[in-house]
Amino acid sequence: MGSRATVPAARKGEMMRVHVINPNSTISMTAQIGRAARRAASADTVIDLVTARGTPVSIEGYADEALSIPAMLAEIRAAEARGAGAHVIACFDDPGLSAAREVAAAPVIGICQAAVQVAMTLSVRFSVVTTLGRSVPIIEDLVDSYGAARRCRRVRAIDLPVLTLEEDPDGSYALLAAEVCAARDHDSAEVVVLGCAGMAEMCERLTAETGVPVIDGVTAAVRQAEALIGMGYRTSKLGGYAWPRIKTGGFAPEAA
Amino acid sequence: MGSRATVPAARKGEMMRVHVINPNSTISMTAQIGRAARRAASADTVIDLVTARGTPVSIEGYADEALSIPAMLAEIRAAEARGAGAHVIACFDDPGLSAAREVAAAPVIGICQAAVQVAMTLSVRFSVVTTLGRSVPIIEDLVDSYGAARRCRRVRAIDLPVLTLEEDPDGSYALLAAEVCAARDHDSAEVVVLGCAGMAEMCERLTAETGVPVIDGVTAAVRQAEALIGMGYRTSKLGGYAWPRIKTGGFAPEAA
Amino acid sequence: MGSRATVPAARKGEMMRVHVINPNSTISMTAQIGRAARRAASADTVIDLVTARGTPVSIEGYADEALSIPAMLAEIRAAEARGAGAHVIACFDDPGLSAAREVAAAPVIGICQAAVQVAMTLSVRFSVVTTLGRSVPIIEDLVDSYGAARRCRRVRAIDLPVLTLEEDPDGSYALLAAEVCAARDHDSAEVVVLGCAGMAEMCERLTAETGVPVIDGVTAAVRQAEALIGMGYRTSKLGGYAWPRIKTGGFAPEAA
Amino acid sequence: MGSRATVPAARKGEMMRVHVINPNSTISMTAQIGRAARRAASADTVIDLVTARGTPVSIEGYADEALSIPAMLAEIRAAEARGAGAHVIACFDDPGLSAAREVAAAPVIGICQAAVQVAMTLSVRFSVVTTLGRSVPIIEDLVDSYGAARRCRRVRAIDLPVLTLEEDPDGSYALLAAEVCAARDHDSAEVVVLGCAGMAEMCERLTAETGVPVIDGVTAAVRQAEALIGMGYRTSKLGGYAWPRIKTGGFAPEAA
Amino acid sequence: MGSRATVPAARKGEMMRVHVINPNSTISMTAQIGRAARRAASADTVIDLVTARGTPVSIEGYADEALSIPAMLAEIRAAEARGAGAHVIACFDDPGLSAAREVAAAPVIGICQAAVQVAMTLSVRFSVVTTLGRSVPIIEDLVDSYGAARRCRRVRAIDLPVLTLEEDPDGSYALLAAEVCAARDHDSAEVVVLGCAGMAEMCERLTAETGVPVIDGVTAAVRQAEALIGMGYRTSKLGGYAWPRIKTGGFAPEAA
Amino acid sequence: MGSRATVPAARKGEMMRVHVINPNSTISMTAQIGRAARRAASADTVIDLVTARGTPVSIEGYADEALSIPAMLAEIRAAEARGAGAHVIACFDDPGLSAAREVAAAPVIGICQAAVQVAMTLSVRFSVVTTLGRSVPIIEDLVDSYGAARRCRRVRAIDLPVLTLEEDPDGSYALLAAEVCAARDHDSAEVVVLGCAGMAEMCERLTAETGVPVIDGVTAAVRQAEALIGMGYRTSKLGGYAWPRIKTGGFAPEAA
Repeated sequence: MGSRATVPAARKGEMMRVHVINPNSTISMTAQIGRAARRAASADTVIDLVTARGTPVSIEGYADEALSIPAMLAEIRAAEARGAGAHVIACFDDPGLSAAREVAAAPVIGICQAAVQVAMTLSVRFSVVTTLGRSVPIIEDLVDSYGAARRCRRVRAIDLPVLTLEEDPDGSYALLAAEVCAARDHDSAEVVVLGCAGMAEMCERLTAETGVPVIDGVTAAVRQAEALIGMGYRTSKLGGYAWPRIKTGGFAPEAA
Repeated sequence: MGSRATVPAARKGEMMRVHVINPNSTISMTAQIGRAARRAASADTVIDLVTARGTPVSIEGYADEALSIPAMLAEIRAAEARGAGAHVIACFDDPGLSAAREVAAAPVIGICQAAVQVAMTLSVRFSVVTTLGRSVPIIEDLVDSYGAARRCRRVRAIDLPVLTLEEDPDGSYALLAAEVCAARDHDSAEVVVLGCAGMAEMCERLTAETGVPVIDGVTAAVRQAEALIGMGYRTSKLGGYAWPRIKTGGFAPEAA
Repeated sequence: MGSRATVPAARKGEMMRVHVINPNSTISMTAQIGRAARRAASADTVIDLVTARGTPVSIEGYADEALSIPAMLAEIRAAEARGAGAHVIACFDDPGLSAAREVAAAPVIGICQAAVQVAMTLSVRFSVVTTLGRSVPIIEDLVDSYGAARRCRRVRAIDLPVLTLEEDPDGSYALLAAEVCAARDHDSAEVVVLGCAGMAEMCERLTAETGVPVIDGVTAAVRQAEALIGMGYRTSKLGGYAWPRIKTGGFAPEAA
Repeated sequence: MGSRATVPAARKGEMMRVHVINPNSTISMTAQIGRAARRAASADTVIDLVTARGTPVSIEGYADEALSIPAMLAEIRAAEARGAGAHVIACFDDPGLSAAREVAAAPVIGICQAAVQVAMTLSVRFSVVTTLGRSVPIIEDLVDSYGAARRCRRVRAIDLPVLTLEEDPDGSYALLAAEVCAARDHDSAEVVVLGCAGMAEMCERLTAETGVPVIDGVTAAVRQAEALIGMGYRTSKLGGYAWPRIKTGGFAPEAA
Repeated sequence: MGSRATVPAARKGEMMRVHVINPNSTISMTAQIGRAARRAASADTVIDLVTARGTPVSIEGYADEALSIPAMLAEIRAAEARGAGAHVIACFDDPGLSAAREVAAAPVIGICQAAVQVAMTLSVRFSVVTTLGRSVPIIEDLVDSYGAARRCRRVRAIDLPVLTLEEDPDGSYALLAAEVCAARDHDSAEVVVLGCAGMAEMCERLTAETGVPVIDGVTAAVRQAEALIGMGYRTSKLGGYAWPRIKTGGFAPEAA
Repeated sequence: MGSRATVPAARKGEMMRVHVINPNSTISMTAQIGRAARRAASADTVIDLVTARGTPVSIEGYADEALSIPAMLAEIRAAEARGAGAHVIACFDDPGLSAAREVAAAPVIGICQAAVQVAMTLSVRFSVVTTLGRSVPIIEDLVDSYGAARRCRRVRAIDLPVLTLEEDPDGSYALLAAEVCAARDHDSAEVVVLGCAGMAEMCERLTAETGVPVIDGVTAAVRQAEALIGMGYRTSKLGGYAWPRIKTGGFAPEAA
């Protein structure tokens, strides 16, 4: 399977190293992601928290995604050299998830896929609440690609730019809570998935105040990363996620 | 959310209790499942291993499933009283998964759903290898219900009754290995999922000898159970998985 | 094909025997089902009407379904011994439909599948109206499994427990009529399917008063049962619905 | 609902009149269809057997279908004037099924839809065997429109023009039997549906000789027609199947 | 490939001949279609504009479609004799599109398929606005058959008969504009497709006044026809669109 | 709609400028793409042919795609400044198609989407033949996203790296021809789509020698680009393809 990079063996009790990368370049958002990641992680887990450099300050569309991926792939390689047992892409668009699975030996988890898998385990029908309206069809297509189209009642937006979550947390919270209640009342959603990494810290309060179980993708992804390391299963290198073929201009194995 | 049964809080470092139930009544198969479960589990996890009583000795069709579910539901309730933080249904048909999520406060994981979710994280295309031919369409429909129809190349069968896996492990292994290779060569499967709890112990040897990453559902489910306990997320009691309404002949909250 | 139980030959003019089983244990509901079944049946048909014993008094979720199936399977076997030419499961969740097709020689019809097939013959788009909100996603998934997801506009609920249909028929009727009109006006439903066996007797009045053709599954299933007996086609015993393999704890051929 | 034409009431014991129309103009094929229809029908049923006039001698593609439909619609209207309680379109392409449901008050059944619905009741997986290869994608799309795409393993062709079924019955039978066995062995088909009205008379012999339950659409449709008449349900005239709007060049209500 | 009719070679700079057929018999509507077609066409293109004869004056349902197709097929053959390089069916139901592809050597484009393909190139989500409510499910199924079900938010109707578009253009325009705005505001449609050939001339004004890009199928189809002629690709005569087999009552090659 | 960049008006007879970008950095491949593009284009069209700089020399997987997109987006902006009326992404993975539609005012066409749309117009069933096996699932998912999953029989690979098409044209041609014939004989494909831009020049010879209509995406895309310019329709800037929000690290409007 993977020979170019080694993945730490999943021996019981040994410390796990989970690389959590924020593909956008906003350090304060990485800090929030980090707090959520560390709160979610087991005692045995070290969170290797990284902010991508030179990428857009927020990811709010296909172009932002595209501009963030090369730097993110480089960080993934670097993190493997530091012994990462798994990688978490902490952006709800799961940008570059497939490319990351090609370049990494360790499993790569996107917070949207993680959250959707959890939602499918804990409910029959769920909704998603995200930031901008323009992200709604992007997330719908993503949820569909994860096989949850029939389970997802609706993807809702609070019409807020991603960075406003940090700039105006109270206003953002109020909008989010209202949208979660709308999902409960109008969609008959049994669970609501938060559609942006920047919402992570509001998760528990939303659950408590609305009565709807709310799922944060960072939390789900970190614990799923630990689970995969513990299982000892890694990305298959036969087929779609095989190592990139070595070529001029291609992803270099020694890139860091 | 859940008020009739309490679920242990997911505090870091605290021991987790995962209830693993074999819906069929064959103790030796439970033992194999238990070995796989304990090998997969974290050091912090206690596996509460249970064999259903009075159910068919193997589950090989819809009727077998139906006859195993009531006893399995009762065991799930009893395990909650013993403090289970999550439940694993250790049969690849995931029998009674939805009913179990209704009667339990703690999350319930089916080994098929767990394995499929892992396969969808580690590959673009996978195949499943199960025991009897009659189970093929059952598993296809199950995989489809988990949203993986486009990802699953084929569900294959080695035409072996479930209990023969134990009675003739060498012959069974040879058939399994041949089918895994066929999946790799003819289906272009990048990962193969073992389609029966009784195959769990053959997983690592199959991976090593065929070169195809092979996934065992018991392993995947136990680690996913731990992850869910760690996340602190539980089954939503709004909607489809709400507590059963109390009624004559219905599932009694005090049943054990 | 079937050798363990014999099915009466479909000779013209010969009396047909259709076993109609109510999986819940409420005798008054069986009586209503029986009235609808007999009104629907041909003059040549005997309705062998049975109430399951020891099962929940109403089926309102996955757990209720699970607890009703074993007793229902036993009744199906017993009815075959009495010469049933077909079986109708008179509960809109179609509980245990696949298991029943395994244990029976005669065809088994679920009232949901029957009603959906009729709706697909008489309209381009239809809606379903059922009792409790928690049943909505269950019925959506069922309708989807019957291939009618694109045709079914919406599954609506009147938020009434099943037994209230009998306890408060006038109030129930009013709620149903309002929901049928909403389906006509908001969903542009061309036909409405009644989503509970307990609604059967309201069918004709609803059609007359709302102007929307309303379909009752008991009616549809009884006539479809007759049709199948008349065709001389029976459940295939190759593959998914093959006889259960004989095993300890399994479905015993001589069970009655 | 329907006011332009009256449909005989479904009173018990009263004779039912089922209009069976062959959209192609080959009288000998209509005769075969008629024999199958009468063998399938109840003693109470009169089969009103009609051959379309001026249409192609066989239907083997989209253009043949198109050229047969106007004449077929006229015959349907004429049959209603004669008191038809239901109509059967006896061509496996179900040509003009939707148009027929617009112009008729009585329900209209296509033999493909009828056969597929029966197959979905009697098996988990089935295949279809038809005449020409060019019809394979047509039938696949039709089966998909009836919601059975996941259930249908394969649509096979014996590469024989429709009329050859009559011209060389022995050779045709041999090809059919071989294809049915291939469906059983290679597709794991549990039931095989005959994909051409002209195969109707071979159905029972094929079942007996191959051991695979084989379904004939004429048989299925005639009995389903009786069932619908018996249920008292008719095509909804709200929406897609509403009466054609009266206009110059349009379908005239008095056309016969 | 095609041998019975010749298609003019796509030599650069040579005049292209595009046959645009209105399947309904209303000459004034053909005139409007023709104006839209000529406005859309390249300078090098001759529009061979034809009104079907003897067909319904408008196409508003399955029966109208069926009655228009034979005459339309004859016109297509005649147009090929006049040197048509491609055919456009100028009715949003795309009636007889498959049959036309069988009888023609030159490519055949339906205005619905053309508009949907353009919408899928220019947006992530779109809606359709058509005339009568009864056409909504017809168009939904058509859009689904073109693979755009997930992309199409909604098919809306302004509840207007087709010919009223001509009889009351101002009232029709107002209704259309309101519906386009509703699609923008309620469906979050990014593009709106006009669901009737008779709306073609309102397209640019609607775009300008609502701010939503509006697509007319006649425009899209004419330009796509030119593109196909320019590519030099023609309908494949292997399989589903093969020439109709020659038979009594069938489509005669020399028909005109 | 678009205000940051202007798109040349589609006035008849005026020269169209189509930007064709090769996302990989191999100039000889761009030359081949250019020859195919110019052969396909109208006399009125200028092909603005560009090779991306600094990108992988071939695109053979998700990571290669990701590394090519930012440079490709910059070229698209530059081409708009030069007056491009449309853009063609000349790589069969359609990399960055959605991102390109965000950053461009002019329509963007991917050669896979173009080829698939043409295939859906000219056949009922088609297959794709591409280079490496690892690309098969990538293309399957892409074809599915374009709504053609049911129409596409199979995606085949000749197991050849992309650049070998140029290095060994004779050997490549032989492999391609064999695979096209296999698609015709085993898949019953009516049309075959070439699954790599580097195959463009083999298209006509393959069609002539195999008798199967073969479609080249570069040809299809160039003509479709002309068609869109001619229609006057541009990408909608409402929703998913709205201009990227201006932000640090984001796609700069003045980037070139």
